[in-house]
Amino acid sequence: MLGAVMDRPLTLPHFLERAGELFGGVPIVSRRPDRSLHRTTYADFYRRSRRLAKALQMLGLERGDRVGTLMWNHAVHLECYFGIPLAGGVVHTLNLRLDPRELAYVVNHAEDRFLIVDDVLLPLLAAIRDRVSPEKVFVATAGGEVPEGCLGYEELLEEQGGGDFDYPDLSEHDAVGMCYTSGTTGRPKGVVYSHRSLVLHSIVECLPDVLGLSQQDTVLPVVPMFHANAWGLPYAATLAGCRQVYPGPHLDAVSLLELMQDERVTFSAGVPTIWMGILEELKAHPDRWKLEPAMRMVVGGSAVPEQMIREFDRFDLNVLHAWGMTELSPLGTLCRLKQDHAGLDPDSRYALRAKQGLPAPLVEIRTVHEEGVAPRDGRTMGELQARGPWVASAYHRPEEETSSWTEDGWFRTGDVATIDQEGYLQITDRTKDLIKSGGEWISSVDLENALMAHPDVAEAAVIAVADPKWQERPLAVVVARPGSRPEADQLRSFLAERFSRWWLPDRFEFVQELPRTSTGKFKKSELREQFSDPRRSRTKS
Amino acid sequence: MLGAVMDRPLTLPHFLERAGELFGGVPIVSRRPDRSLHRTTYADFYRRSRRLAKALQMLGLERGDRVGTLMWNHAVHLECYFGIPLAGGVVHTLNLRLDPRELAYVVNHAEDRFLIVDDVLLPLLAAIRDRVSPEKVFVATAGGEVPEGCLGYEELLEEQGGGDFDYPDLSEHDAVGMCYTSGTTGRPKGVVYSHRSLVLHSIVECLPDVLGLSQQDTVLPVVPMFHANAWGLPYAATLAGCRQVYPGPHLDAVSLLELMQDERVTFSAGVPTIWMGILEELKAHPDRWKLEPAMRMVVGGSAVPEQMIREFDRFDLNVLHAWGMTELSPLGTLCRLKQDHAGLDPDSRYALRAKQGLPAPLVEIRTVHEEGVAPRDGRTMGELQARGPWVASAYHRPEEETSSWTEDGWFRTGDVATIDQEGYLQITDRTKDLIKSGGEWISSVDLENALMAHPDVAEAAVIAVADPKWQERPLAVVVARPGSRPEADQLRSFLAERFSRWWLPDRFEFVQELPRTSTGKFKKSELREQFSDPRRSRTKS
Repeated sequence: MLGAVMDRPLTLPHFLERAGELFGGVPIVSRRPDRSLHRTTYADFYRRSRRLAKALQMLGLERGDRVGTLMWNHAVHLECYFGIPLAGGVVHTLNLRLDPRELAYVVNHAEDRFLIVDDVLLPLLAAIRDRVSPEKVFVATAGGEVPEGCLGYEELLEEQGGGDFDYPDLSEHDAVGMCYTSGTTGRPKGVVYSHRSLVLHSIVECLPDVLGLSQQDTVLPVVPMFHANAWGLPYAATLAGCRQVYPGPHLDAVSLLELMQDERVTFSAGVPTIWMGILEELKAHPDRWKLEPAMRMVVGGSAVPEQMIREFDRFDLNVLHAWGMTELSPLGTLCRLKQDHAGLDPDSRYALRAKQGLPAPLVEIRTVHEEGVAPRDGRTMGELQARGPWVASAYHRPEEETSSWTEDGWFRTGDVATIDQEGYLQITDRTKDLIKSGGEWISSVDLENALMAHPDVAEAAVIAVADPKWQERPLAVVVARPGSRPEADQLRSFLAERFSRWWLPDRFEFVQELPRTSTGKFKKSELREQFSDPRRSRTKS
Repeated sequence: MLGAVMDRPLTLPHFLERAGELFGGVPIVSRRPDRSLHRTTYADFYRRSRRLAKALQMLGLERGDRVGTLMWNHAVHLECYFGIPLAGGVVHTLNLRLDPRELAYVVNHAEDRFLIVDDVLLPLLAAIRDRVSPEKVFVATAGGEVPEGCLGYEELLEEQGGGDFDYPDLSEHDAVGMCYTSGTTGRPKGVVYSHRSLVLHSIVECLPDVLGLSQQDTVLPVVPMFHANAWGLPYAATLAGCRQVYPGPHLDAVSLLELMQDERVTFSAGVPTIWMGILEELKAHPDRWKLEPAMRMVVGGSAVPEQMIREFDRFDLNVLHAWGMTELSPLGTLCRLKQDHAGLDPDSRYALRAKQGLPAPLVEIRTVHEEGVAPRDGRTMGELQARGPWVASAYHRPEEETSSWTEDGWFRTGDVATIDQEGYLQITDRTKDLIKSGGEWISSVDLENALMAHPDVAEAAVIAVADPKWQERPLAVVVARPGSRPEADQLRSFLAERFSRWWLPDRFEFVQELPRTSTGKFKKSELREQFSDPRRSRTKS
């Protein structure tokens, strides 16, 4: 016996139509490269997204054709997020922090038919131009000239976008967008989302125990729109009818704080490094900034040191710890305390908030070790695996066999984690960063977070180095705070208060800064190379 | 090109598994018929729901078999909500307020194979016993004896529920549950929900701009679990991990207020009559009750008089106005103000809150009049139509041709409504209650709400009576407040401040009480009969 309900597909047009009908007056603010603010509304975004879709159809865009975007975070990029899939195409966001060779690889591998590029990123386009061959390139300018060989994005909308527009007859399984992972090893790999996965992901993101987005919110996605769809925020915020604020290329702490203050931002999201900079600025000028009370800041991409959560609390700013991956659209877990945690002492509450939290509805997680599924005891580490209706089932046109999916259909994240009795996830490491000493595992992330709580330490990364006796031993690479000169012995004693003796790093190296990946994570492969780790060629497991 | 994401069906087992893994310690409280409180937890609910599913499988339950429940709101009914569909069956909630003839019709029409019945409802079962022939009847008792010819629910779980349980391989399109509409005309009609429609409905209900349910909430569903699945709350609250509080058969104002106070309820839901009683009690004993600040109360089933919203605000209780129907699972719209409404004066805010609000995500609404889709101007009335992935597409085994769906696939709600420029819905009437005077429409609901704001009026219903000149004219049936004796002329002058002359009722009738349907709505058919309306045989359009 089947249910007798309407067979309505979960597709993106509903989001845009809803936004146009209900939220026409809601503002969208973007910072331009010249630092001026561009202001528009959902009504205009609605009209222009449909014009873009119409124009792409007029150009002959076929169902499933990829359109690459090489853009910062702003309202035109938001139009592309909607207009391209509404025309039946696939929006492929290009990571402008890749080196040109990788970027060209990604454009070619995805077979991007058209490109839409910010004028300020034309130098990057020029660097790949002889390696790629899109049929047309459209340039979004704020009034500037369009270079030879390219077409104007505004002209495209103006000249081709007029007249009636009808949505194509989309299935919820049709591709909607595409992101490449910026892996630290191997070639970037493409993940292809469907309308269904995107709609479900967006709705669940808005839930009170996930991001909690409502029409009362003003959302500032600091996380780039070319990085896992800015964690899905442009779609979720449009569904909820939030005010949207985009920072353009200005991602320094002062520019972001200005936007947060002036636009009364209630919700933001980004990687820890962004928040570290903001925290430093707040501490340096505690009276300079007036932010919205209890502004929520989702922090993901790497683990958040507990210390950072505590320090932001002093400014009445609420850090929400999340875990996700491009392969998860990207949302996996989010840390919210339960009702009965209200009775815990502050230290226990902070310890919980430093975990990555509970799986979002529709997501399932488990940890697997040598003996099968690991117990949920908060101690036993295992490889984190995930399953759910927005988890990738394959990479796009893979160039090599991957072992990223288990035989029973779970995605192998490459993270090592524990899950506690209440279901809270804690990432202890990347599989490849885990330190195996004397047959036991040592978590580099735990050591890093503990080190970063030391008053003299600005940042710390811990890597494995080969050891003839123990197989591997931890080595800590430390950036001191300006004006401090911590010593290895001090730091070792500091760690000894919390960890067993055999966890303590044998070596401490002090450096001026840590190398980072394009998404702001510590680039441990480079550290391993620098500090003579023979495992430098070790690949992602 | 298709998305490359996992093909995970949207089915109910995920909700139960999630609840068991993450919320084991969360309490579920039920008031028993003897007024004592029964306390259990999600861990127990998880275990018992699976035992019920297992036991039903052992009894030979086949995929799609209906199991009827004749029960009040309590934890065992919650187990049935999950256990029956988890076994592959269809949970069919029986409205215990139907008269025995109708109840027997519903059991037979749905072909309920098993029944699960509260011991306190055995007299009702006895009244239909010779008209129905379920294979087995299980009786849930709080320790009492099981009558002859029935089996014990606890024994079923105990004896048949042991051992391993494996979920059947459910498709998201499989039927999950069934509710019959308690129409004021014609036979009850069956609506069959799917796993998919239920999962989507539950997630969307939890959104911040819909019900806003989180693991911080304690939810008390006053609306019966036999009435449109208690508006989906048992499923949504389980998904969110809320504490759940069930009132059993004790629905009087004092019993409910006691539960709300003692269990620190943050969220409740019911029809206006329930809230009117609670409001009277709060006004009579303003210092007696200490409820949670800003407790949310969803009011639906009929329009909420603006006056009620204002009066509850004085007690710091937040009325949320909703509109739904059994055919919509039941959620259609919910009224939340937008960010820029913060600047409105209080009267305008109350006027907005007295509307039924914005469509929930995934729901589409429109109003249709003689000339097609009506403009969204807040004035033009039209028949309200709805579409979405949890809107019924047909009735179960219909006995007559229905005109409830349009040719282009929208559900015809039978409500007459306006939609304003910002998208807010306002129900002005049921199609069959609308008054057509001199070719123009008069809203009986508007007149009723206005009358109920008069200090001397407790309740008022407005009906059409035939008129030789104008075709129809409004007649008001009024229940005075205790101790007051309003007169027709006073009330007419009172209405004249707000409505055109031709809207004012020609007649006022004063009665002791208004007849109601089983779900607490005014039974206007009876009033029309009583006041000699020749249209008494008019059927639902």
